[in-house]
Amino acid sequence: MKASNGNKHTLADSGYTAWLSYPVLPQGNAYNQYVKWCGAVKVAEENDTVQAALQEWQRGIESMLGIKVSSKPDGLCIAIGTFQGGNELISGVFAEDTLAKVGPEGFAIRSSEENDCIAVGASSPAGVLYGVFHLLRLIGSLQSIEGLDEVVNPVNGLRMINHWDNFDGSVERGYSGRSFLYEDNRFTRDLERIRDYARLMSSAGINAIAINNVNVHALETLFISKYLPDVSRIADVFRLYGIKLFLSVNFAGPMHEGEVGTADPLDPEVRKWWQSKAAEIYAAIPDFGGFVVKADSENRPGPFTYGRDHADGANMLAEALEPFGGIVIWRCFVYNCKQDWRDRKTDRARAAYDHFKPLDGKFNDNVILQIKNGPMDFQVREPVSPLFGALERTNQVIEFQIAQEYTGQQRHVCYLVPQWKEIMEFNTYAKGEASPVKHIVDGSLWGNRYSGIAAVSNVGNDKNWTGHLLAQANLYGYGRLAWNPELTAEQIASEWISLTFGTDPVVSGVISRILLDSWEIYESYTAPLGVGWMINPEHHYGPNVDGYEYSQWGTYHYADHRGIGVDRTVKTGTGYSAQYLGSNAEHYDSLEECPDELLLFFHHVPYTHILHSGKTVIQHIYDAHFEGAERAAELLSMWTSLKDKVAEGLYLQVENRLKEQAGHAKEWRDQINTYFYRKSGIEDNSERVIY
Amino acid sequence: MKASNGNKHTLADSGYTAWLSYPVLPQGNAYNQYVKWCGAVKVAEENDTVQAALQEWQRGIESMLGIKVSSKPDGLCIAIGTFQGGNELISGVFAEDTLAKVGPEGFAIRSSEENDCIAVGASSPAGVLYGVFHLLRLIGSLQSIEGLDEVVNPVNGLRMINHWDNFDGSVERGYSGRSFLYEDNRFTRDLERIRDYARLMSSAGINAIAINNVNVHALETLFISKYLPDVSRIADVFRLYGIKLFLSVNFAGPMHEGEVGTADPLDPEVRKWWQSKAAEIYAAIPDFGGFVVKADSENRPGPFTYGRDHADGANMLAEALEPFGGIVIWRCFVYNCKQDWRDRKTDRARAAYDHFKPLDGKFNDNVILQIKNGPMDFQVREPVSPLFGALERTNQVIEFQIAQEYTGQQRHVCYLVPQWKEIMEFNTYAKGEASPVKHIVDGSLWGNRYSGIAAVSNVGNDKNWTGHLLAQANLYGYGRLAWNPELTAEQIASEWISLTFGTDPVVSGVISRILLDSWEIYESYTAPLGVGWMINPEHHYGPNVDGYEYSQWGTYHYADHRGIGVDRTVKTGTGYSAQYLGSNAEHYDSLEECPDELLLFFHHVPYTHILHSGKTVIQHIYDAHFEGAERAAELLSMWTSLKDKVAEGLYLQVENRLKEQAGHAKEWRDQINTYFYRKSGIEDNSERVIY
Repeated sequence: MKASNGNKHTLADSGYTAWLSYPVLPQGNAYNQYVKWCGAVKVAEENDTVQAALQEWQRGIESMLGIKVSSKPDGLCIAIGTFQGGNELISGVFAEDTLAKVGPEGFAIRSSEENDCIAVGASSPAGVLYGVFHLLRLIGSLQSIEGLDEVVNPVNGLRMINHWDNFDGSVERGYSGRSFLYEDNRFTRDLERIRDYARLMSSAGINAIAINNVNVHALETLFISKYLPDVSRIADVFRLYGIKLFLSVNFAGPMHEGEVGTADPLDPEVRKWWQSKAAEIYAAIPDFGGFVVKADSENRPGPFTYGRDHADGANMLAEALEPFGGIVIWRCFVYNCKQDWRDRKTDRARAAYDHFKPLDGKFNDNVILQIKNGPMDFQVREPVSPLFGALERTNQVIEFQIAQEYTGQQRHVCYLVPQWKEIMEFNTYAKGEASPVKHIVDGSLWGNRYSGIAAVSNVGNDKNWTGHLLAQANLYGYGRLAWNPELTAEQIASEWISLTFGTDPVVSGVISRILLDSWEIYESYTAPLGVGWMINPEHHYGPNVDGYEYSQWGTYHYADHRGIGVDRTVKTGTGYSAQYLGSNAEHYDSLEECPDELLLFFHHVPYTHILHSGKTVIQHIYDAHFEGAERAAELLSMWTSLKDKVAEGLYLQVENRLKEQAGHAKEWRDQINTYFYRKSGIEDNSERVIY
Repeated sequence: MKASNGNKHTLADSGYTAWLSYPVLPQGNAYNQYVKWCGAVKVAEENDTVQAALQEWQRGIESMLGIKVSSKPDGLCIAIGTFQGGNELISGVFAEDTLAKVGPEGFAIRSSEENDCIAVGASSPAGVLYGVFHLLRLIGSLQSIEGLDEVVNPVNGLRMINHWDNFDGSVERGYSGRSFLYEDNRFTRDLERIRDYARLMSSAGINAIAINNVNVHALETLFISKYLPDVSRIADVFRLYGIKLFLSVNFAGPMHEGEVGTADPLDPEVRKWWQSKAAEIYAAIPDFGGFVVKADSENRPGPFTYGRDHADGANMLAEALEPFGGIVIWRCFVYNCKQDWRDRKTDRARAAYDHFKPLDGKFNDNVILQIKNGPMDFQVREPVSPLFGALERTNQVIEFQIAQEYTGQQRHVCYLVPQWKEIMEFNTYAKGEASPVKHIVDGSLWGNRYSGIAAVSNVGNDKNWTGHLLAQANLYGYGRLAWNPELTAEQIASEWISLTFGTDPVVSGVISRILLDSWEIYESYTAPLGVGWMINPEHHYGPNVDGYEYSQWGTYHYADHRGIGVDRTVKTGTGYSAQYLGSNAEHYDSLEECPDELLLFFHHVPYTHILHSGKTVIQHIYDAHFEGAERAAELLSMWTSLKDKVAEGLYLQVENRLKEQAGHAKEWRDQINTYFYRKSGIEDNSERVIY
């Protein structure tokens, strides 16, 4: 069976409609149940967002069920709206205590025979939208809509996407074409695409988007002045879908854009400049989200220039935004990027903690620190940043990278939800035994005013948004996980597959396996055992074992002919392991206890060191790389089994990428194995070909 | 004593006037002798080139001697002109058999008391120019001009410079700013600078310049059509100084610029296209030199596309140029640039010989093959290309690279004349015992119609032309060596120093030592023992031992924990050594006889292999790198000893570069030593710090 609507819609066939493709559902009991309820819809609100929800509902139902949705119910129907929607239509369906449980962005949903409807109600129009997307998702994945009676609130307050799009149309670490927001230093006029993007984001649960790169160049510095009308037009589109717009700002703005001779955060002129700037912005965009700031990081300007600290810098901006309800998101990606590779005592992994731990409690309460998930930089494997747990009195969000900078650049498939899940479940021991990262991130552990998740976007102007079609699963999965970290990676994959490809269980089984195995596979043929960074400098694609070994970036593996790894222990190394709390510190510090997959992150060991797996380090390297390349080739053959089951356009896109991956995985295998064979002189005990 | 005219002229102080700075000469016997003869000059020709020679003479004498040159002799004088100059002025001074010895570009010079003059006579205006520059050079280096009686002819017919300037203003492998010929896809209007460039080139003996990059991009393809008027303007300037202009052309021109659907060299339409193109060019530039062609090389188009060979391609162009006296210079830099690094049998070093040896005798006699000096690509050390000696019936020129792509990029000092000398003296055994490269290059060994030398330019729009002031010595030295390969590296250095900095013997001694040691120093701290290529990919600056090890470029060292080197022997390697003639083949093939400095080019050896020097390979690597970095630092202290003896502008330029070199040499030292220490595990027997 061909995927149901693959050939009907070129947009769907290109991947453009993504998980809002609404594939035609198969006939059967579920279908009949949906038709029973969904023939009509009731809405009694003119609010734009509620109307957008209604449109989405009609589009989805008409596509999936092939029926017209009437707005004049005669029998069962779907009723959507806010509780305050001007009549009893919605609130009357729910019990009082149900209403009380619905948060500002949450919704309640109830299938009520006595009211002749399934009601989707919310406190806010955005909640209505989320509820409608929820119900569409249930239908799209063939779940029952009878007997529904639940309240759904997002677990995380801030569910954010960071774009690294530049005004010239390039995208820093973009692997899906160019920007669809900008080209040639002007705003694109393709508001239709931006609206479709907002629909996708909203349906995945995103409520905040920063539209420009954290490295704010000369012209982008003017987004908060000259280009404000353009920014405002995008904010209008986002608003419709419950999304707040944020801007990355240049800390040196008062000097570059303004005419203040300094950017010193304690200078009254500077403070005044930002205050009046905030007023200007909010005059144009009343619900503007706030600023994202990369300061004193990788050569960006910041408070250090003036002998001030990060709290001084962030609080100054926070003061300016506070009257308008805005927030400052201050990135913690601060480290010495001019390190001497000869210096083994300086440890980039320590940097974020060393910089920000002493400032705990010093930030205003509309400042949020944005902390990368690991201490280095989005490697395929690294430990969780020890800042999680260390900051007790500071708002914080975790930063993930949906863009696959270090995980195959959307030319290899690497479904990242399992990685993010593992990080979110990591127990920090910050407040007793049960202190997982997810409870820091959702604000519950310390009771923060603001908290949540941010991630670097993986979209561009490629027709299918993400270059690799399967990379859409990361974008979708990120949003879903941000909404509810309790969802499993399997659940999310399964949802995404149904919504994108339809409900054929064979298709679902194969793609699900491809996705769920992909991270492990990618890890197995790239840098081994958590050591990271064996990549080509600058563009970061493809193997290069010594690519960063003699560089200034603080990213070394120290391989010699006896062994490899970075000694980050307390007694003989950089002492990084002591930044962890409770048993984590001892666990990582101990050669015996350290988990295999992070061994080389924490310890320098001989190639003959025996892992918990029973293999030596060198044999593990050989085995993992041979197996990894083989499994990458298997991904391709798994996919080709779907040739007649997936719409041709989608099929071919993925086939091409998986072919490249299979070939490139061999290149990884051979370069890594050859490097270590030449260096160690130790033979592979299976006598496979190493060059 | 401050360098004499350093402070008077800002142009001289910037380095712009280079070896035509004409520093003021010290008072003394020599000075008095010059004043005696040089007070007046006689010329009886209106020819532009002879007039340019006269101007140069006046400029030089007035600057060096501080006297006015009268054109109305009253007593002793200098007489310059061609023998055909319309009177007895010149030819009357020389004996009949002297006149007969003067070739088309040569000159005779005679100090004749009976004629009251020193006469500089030549068969051609260009010869007059060369003679005047010769006499100025004698004076500028304080040599006697009494009793002169000699005939000087250039040893090599073609003395060429290849510019790799692109129309957009960039210079491929340029290290001296941007192009002064083009900017932003138009010809610069700075004809004054181009004229000064022509003066410099002519004074060094250059008679041919190709003005655009051998990689001919879209717009440069139109240099032979749309932009011909602009090209012609440059040719006019060059003509004045005896220089013929050449163009690099796009082999696919008939398709891209013309409307022929193919570039097949045997297609009659293609041949006709090139023929009429040649006619157009010569209508605009009657003395146009010809074409330089890079075909079927590094992704450039060529005859292979049509199943034709290089002779088919070159001869087709040659036919088009022949009626006008033009020549085709066809580059032999042809190799597989998509090699699999796992494949140890393919050997890039073999490629030029394998491609062109079978074609010997098949090229028209106005085709010249341009052969890089070595089989790889301008490394600091590689053997001489075995094509020299192998081609018995083919015109050929040797190609050097004045641009220091692989020898420090004009940020390190590396005086290349000693390298070029060594290559020119290399005995090929092609025609018995005495068959040095220089006799192939000058055409004498095989009696070629055309022969000579070409080299890639090192100039740009930096005020001092070459970025590093001391790199001017390579430009000057290249021209002088092309004129007369018998000049020693010491002589050339000494001339250049006097002409640039004046005649202070202390200055001369120090700079001469810096120059003459510099190649050895650079070699000592970079890739060891002839193995080459341990550099950063693409831009080629700075150390990166594995930078090209897993690449497609055919440039490997195969270092493992036991040893290093490329086995190019006959029995166990690629067989490259057999491309040499006579005892060279055995010499290189033999592990015992192979010279140390090329050992790793020809053999893969253990680190413990004992060199002729008595050191192990690994100890040689350590020692050479420690010593090299130390000697680089000494270059700086030698230079600083000249602080009060060299004009400040010149002094500071060189000081800055030598500082960078001293620091960067340490980086080379540490990265190379660390790489080999980590890989071999063998300790330095002097226990110095390796990381």
